[in-house]
Amino acid sequence: MLERYGHGGDLWTAEETFGWPKDQFLDFSSNMNPLGPPLVVQQILSDAWRDIVKYPDPAVRELRSKLAQKYEIPMESILVGNGAAELIDLIARVLKPSVTGLARPSFSEYEEAIHKTGGGIYNIPLRSSHQFELQQQDMEAAYSAVDLFFLGHPNNPTGKLIPRHILSNLIESGRSCVLDEAFMDFVADEQEHSLLKLASTSRQLFVIRSMTKFYSIPGIRLGFMVAHPEAIREIQQQQVQWSVNYLAQRIGTAVLEDEKFERNSRHWLQEEKAWLTGQLRQLGLDVVFTEVNFVLFSFPEPMGLTVKQAQKYMGQQGILIRDASLFEGLSERYCRVAIRLREDNVRLIEGLRLMLAAFGAESRTKS
Amino acid sequence: MLERYGHGGDLWTAEETFGWPKDQFLDFSSNMNPLGPPLVVQQILSDAWRDIVKYPDPAVRELRSKLAQKYEIPMESILVGNGAAELIDLIARVLKPSVTGLARPSFSEYEEAIHKTGGGIYNIPLRSSHQFELQQQDMEAAYSAVDLFFLGHPNNPTGKLIPRHILSNLIESGRSCVLDEAFMDFVADEQEHSLLKLASTSRQLFVIRSMTKFYSIPGIRLGFMVAHPEAIREIQQQQVQWSVNYLAQRIGTAVLEDEKFERNSRHWLQEEKAWLTGQLRQLGLDVVFTEVNFVLFSFPEPMGLTVKQAQKYMGQQGILIRDASLFEGLSERYCRVAIRLREDNVRLIEGLRLMLAAFGAESRTKS
Repeated sequence: MLERYGHGGDLWTAEETFGWPKDQFLDFSSNMNPLGPPLVVQQILSDAWRDIVKYPDPAVRELRSKLAQKYEIPMESILVGNGAAELIDLIARVLKPSVTGLARPSFSEYEEAIHKTGGGIYNIPLRSSHQFELQQQDMEAAYSAVDLFFLGHPNNPTGKLIPRHILSNLIESGRSCVLDEAFMDFVADEQEHSLLKLASTSRQLFVIRSMTKFYSIPGIRLGFMVAHPEAIREIQQQQVQWSVNYLAQRIGTAVLEDEKFERNSRHWLQEEKAWLTGQLRQLGLDVVFTEVNFVLFSFPEPMGLTVKQAQKYMGQQGILIRDASLFEGLSERYCRVAIRLREDNVRLIEGLRLMLAAFGAESRTKS
Repeated sequence: MLERYGHGGDLWTAEETFGWPKDQFLDFSSNMNPLGPPLVVQQILSDAWRDIVKYPDPAVRELRSKLAQKYEIPMESILVGNGAAELIDLIARVLKPSVTGLARPSFSEYEEAIHKTGGGIYNIPLRSSHQFELQQQDMEAAYSAVDLFFLGHPNNPTGKLIPRHILSNLIESGRSCVLDEAFMDFVADEQEHSLLKLASTSRQLFVIRSMTKFYSIPGIRLGFMVAHPEAIREIQQQQVQWSVNYLAQRIGTAVLEDEKFERNSRHWLQEEKAWLTGQLRQLGLDVVFTEVNFVLFSFPEPMGLTVKQAQKYMGQQGILIRDASLFEGLSERYCRVAIRLREDNVRLIEGLRLMLAAFGAESRTKS
């Protein structure tokens, strides 16, 4: 399987598995903004090569100041990390919850971080019968059982936001919660949904953001956390010195200024999300409504097709898709794909069409 | 003080303190090879900017394979980290020693990593009366008191290797030891001193290397650890996913092939070490013999000068030196400087000469 290290986007394993050079895959398995990286990244890497002779700023002052300005929160409420992955690991180690509530299917790093600390998991089911939308009664059932919630907002791989009334109720309940807003930048009305500001003064809320998805810079690693300044100080004491490399700090500071990139990205997503989900539905696939730049879908039962078969067939054509059955709570028929530029999306749809025909699945669903 | 975050090389704090733009300091406070970074770094950063749209290889396969080849050790014995700092933190968390023996003065990260795990420190004194060379009797006294040794080899800030007979005795004793070989590449007969190979199959020995000092790439963060494959697997399970960024992996793989850079660096150091230490002695300073690219020295008592005064005076001239009194076990008269290119070293010596004159210290020691 491609997800040998638990995630999509592993081109090294793809090369080993399918024999194509890793640069030639069309990668729908990792959820990057296809408009990125912003051009300013090229300039920074060309200009700044001699600057890596310097240690990174241990306090990440320039980037934190820029983030504080953009999101209108105090600098002291921001901790920058070596990717959101480091912050997920850190918060689990610092909070050391005995039982953590996860709304699954969800990003596997939450669970892994919790397991490393020896904590237990309480499963809050996201039900296909509710289009994977979190339900208030399932949350309430968890209130007495958990001491921390760790939730994707929006959630990966379902692409769903947590409904507003559930968040309000959670805050009012006084319970502690880590929200992973890694894909929040892709949500059309981001500011109405993000809890960054609330987290900056809250004693119970921790928001983690990734900067690598929206700006397409996963190779450089960059994320940040927003919480009460005292919590941030405590968490930072557990962080490794110089954890955030110099280039990540420079790039992060620069891309935040690129408003045109932001506008173009929103425009692209609005168009392509509608187009791609429409096409997937026309192929007879069961598509889950998404708020972000990836789509979860399943092969309907009558097709008799598993995602493992699909991943292999598509991989041999040089197209990588995500085996979503590896997410706890999803059956062997679930698949996740990133939304890319139109010409790539067309190749995905064509590839899927060929595959369905090859497996005799297309006709079976149409009949 | 400059070492607000516990280390040298913090140009952001230097700028805040002395008011010079951070690019204009002559930085003797961080120990980088002045010949670096190798030119291939420029090419990688120019060519690879679009490649950061990909996740880093989670298993760091190319770089580990190259390291395995260079040092003739199995790939399975190598774990690459987000700087040596991450590996120091990881090994402390995995081994969780109750009492760790540190030969001090030593690099502060060992102590900080141990403190984070709640472990205690046993102090093995490095004595100025022995030119800070580790003594067998001090080690033996520690044998019954500690369950882990954490030693610099060569040690920072003293620049000393651990004597061979002490290492042999330690290995024979069966005790566990982490050796930090961050500066081993600078040692003239490195292969005779490094314990990398021994560590690759040992059950008791862990060797940590930094790649950022010799290749002058601290901004990108890169280090590796060598130990028994089973220990490496266990430690890796605690490491954050994608901890080593893509550019660090690419750069690390490329610089290892640059044999000319390696030769030139050894040649430069041989000459400049002799020259700079000679000049420092001529200024009347007490210089500790060093094996590497930095020098520890002290202002003799009669000069009546503290390193804090010196750091302030030199900083106002745009020259940064390391306040070595912040290392446990060194008095307020100790200072550490990196060895740089001749013209920079000349400026350092001139700056120190001016300072000694300004404080009336030059004449006092000469009289």
